[in-house]
Amino acid sequence: MTDINQYWTLTSRPSGKASPANFELHSQPLTSLAEGEVRVRTHFVSVDPYMRGRMDDTPSYAPPQPLDQVMQARGVGKVTESRHPGFQMDDAVLGMLGWQLHATVDGDSLTKVSDTDFPLSTYLGCAGMPGITAWYGLNKIIRPRAGETILVSAASGAVGSVVGQLARRAGARVVGIAGGPEKCALVVEEFGFDACIDYKAGNLVADLAAATPGRIDGNFENVGGKILDAVLDRMNSFGRIAVCGLISGYEGNAAPLKNFSSVLRNRLSIQGFIVGEQKADWEKTAPAELVALVASGELKYRESVSHGIESLPQAFLGLMQGSNIGKQLVKVY
Amino acid sequence: MTDINQYWTLTSRPSGKASPANFELHSQPLTSLAEGEVRVRTHFVSVDPYMRGRMDDTPSYAPPQPLDQVMQARGVGKVTESRHPGFQMDDAVLGMLGWQLHATVDGDSLTKVSDTDFPLSTYLGCAGMPGITAWYGLNKIIRPRAGETILVSAASGAVGSVVGQLARRAGARVVGIAGGPEKCALVVEEFGFDACIDYKAGNLVADLAAATPGRIDGNFENVGGKILDAVLDRMNSFGRIAVCGLISGYEGNAAPLKNFSSVLRNRLSIQGFIVGEQKADWEKTAPAELVALVASGELKYRESVSHGIESLPQAFLGLMQGSNIGKQLVKVY
Repeated sequence: MTDINQYWTLTSRPSGKASPANFELHSQPLTSLAEGEVRVRTHFVSVDPYMRGRMDDTPSYAPPQPLDQVMQARGVGKVTESRHPGFQMDDAVLGMLGWQLHATVDGDSLTKVSDTDFPLSTYLGCAGMPGITAWYGLNKIIRPRAGETILVSAASGAVGSVVGQLARRAGARVVGIAGGPEKCALVVEEFGFDACIDYKAGNLVADLAAATPGRIDGNFENVGGKILDAVLDRMNSFGRIAVCGLISGYEGNAAPLKNFSSVLRNRLSIQGFIVGEQKADWEKTAPAELVALVASGELKYRESVSHGIESLPQAFLGLMQGSNIGKQLVKVY
Repeated sequence: MTDINQYWTLTSRPSGKASPANFELHSQPLTSLAEGEVRVRTHFVSVDPYMRGRMDDTPSYAPPQPLDQVMQARGVGKVTESRHPGFQMDDAVLGMLGWQLHATVDGDSLTKVSDTDFPLSTYLGCAGMPGITAWYGLNKIIRPRAGETILVSAASGAVGSVVGQLARRAGARVVGIAGGPEKCALVVEEFGFDACIDYKAGNLVADLAAATPGRIDGNFENVGGKILDAVLDRMNSFGRIAVCGLISGYEGNAAPLKNFSSVLRNRLSIQGFIVGEQKADWEKTAPAELVALVASGELKYRESVSHGIESLPQAFLGLMQGSNIGKQLVKVY
């Protein structure tokens, strides 16, 4: 075995914005497997906003990313060696493979997937956790009814783009918020939203009012700060807000909320959630439903793919600045 | 009939703080009743923070208080004249009697109450809407479990004092927030809270941390602004927040919220509510339960009573500044 693993570690915790200096690339020869372990050649690594939270050492729902260890991340790849009875060479698998070329993991932590219906990368996007996150927040928290208006921030992203499409299928009018005309065009033309507001155009409050003449019944929140504040003020009575992400505050302080009184005035319900904790509510339905919609072409998706293990920190840092369109991935094979 | 009614109208809408100049006292001879009407001699008028919201002309869950008409308010009193088959002289009744000595109302809008078990005034406090509001927010939104920590702002008030006592009965550890040492002593000694923080002492964040070593599982929010912000940062995972009132923002802008990210980090649920809209969830249980607890002496209450129809605006304005202890009432008989 002459293979050398390459992997990224977190070497320091950022204060404020993360930077390339927080990461370090290492090379190390592969060692032999223990009983029950599987070696996976990573094809795609997922980078996601939640990783920024784990780079901090503050109490949160998940333990922080440990320093000087492989950056944790979902990935898809193929088995190259197995000492686990459930896996053999060339099996396509999904798991916490990390920011590395070769993952050595407990076979029990891997999920076998099929790469015949659609590309493996999809299991990191609309057919995977981002898709399930969209499905859960929409169907279990917002519960859209036909004719209602649903608002989705970060609408061109991996989660937002699925939320909007599922909400449209439920008969809702769907309005997105995204950054820049290119993303907004994609949100309307490709993902089929009824409208999309470019928050970078500088008229968020007025544009939001114009795009939601019947106000907003459900809000799938990915951003927080000024965007959430504007949305709060447009909510209808008995509106529901699913808080999936608050990326505007991940690298500093989000703008404080001035319009919280809408919660009382409009009797809103707000629910923060982490989809991985709610598995009982989705595991029997969401994955199969999403896979079927992707396979049939009814659920559209976009990927921003950067290439090479070297590009990993930059792909992640770009995601935090919104430079991706759709699901941000890194292809390392 | 020589009786003269005296009644208060709203003559102008305040911008910011309400003042005596917004109200005017009128005198008018009583006219004869129409079929179905009942005349009630008001004994006690309720003043409540929600009235401040209705003095504004902004969209809200209830229509604004009309200008130049009798100030709307719950009251208790006794029937002096009836052209409704369901009521006769001296019946004790509860209804929207308004800020006036003699209310002329549709008999169908009145509820007969008993004044033999405890004072009539109680139907405006712990055995009435404030008590039901406490019951609903606690039992239907917060749903306390034994051993959990429940936080109640405006803890010495008509609603907060009932929330804390019901939460203690459910086995929770209960911490209040109130303004000043006198109120805090009452909250602990009379209402039986485990602790009470004086927000006016100037150490809210540190005092809250010290009083909630196990953090906060449920928050009954009456105030908003800085108090809510401090509480948000002390919430436990899967905490519940019932938003009943946001009095800090009723006469100007509440402090904006900096700690909304706790909603995601701790997967909080937040629910704004208006108890009158949720009648189906409480009418068969809450009133009887509260009346029984008051009659047996198990549920303690305090009243701040001002005397005379002339004192009504000042009683209301004082309530908005927190000068009451317990339920603020005006005795007009």
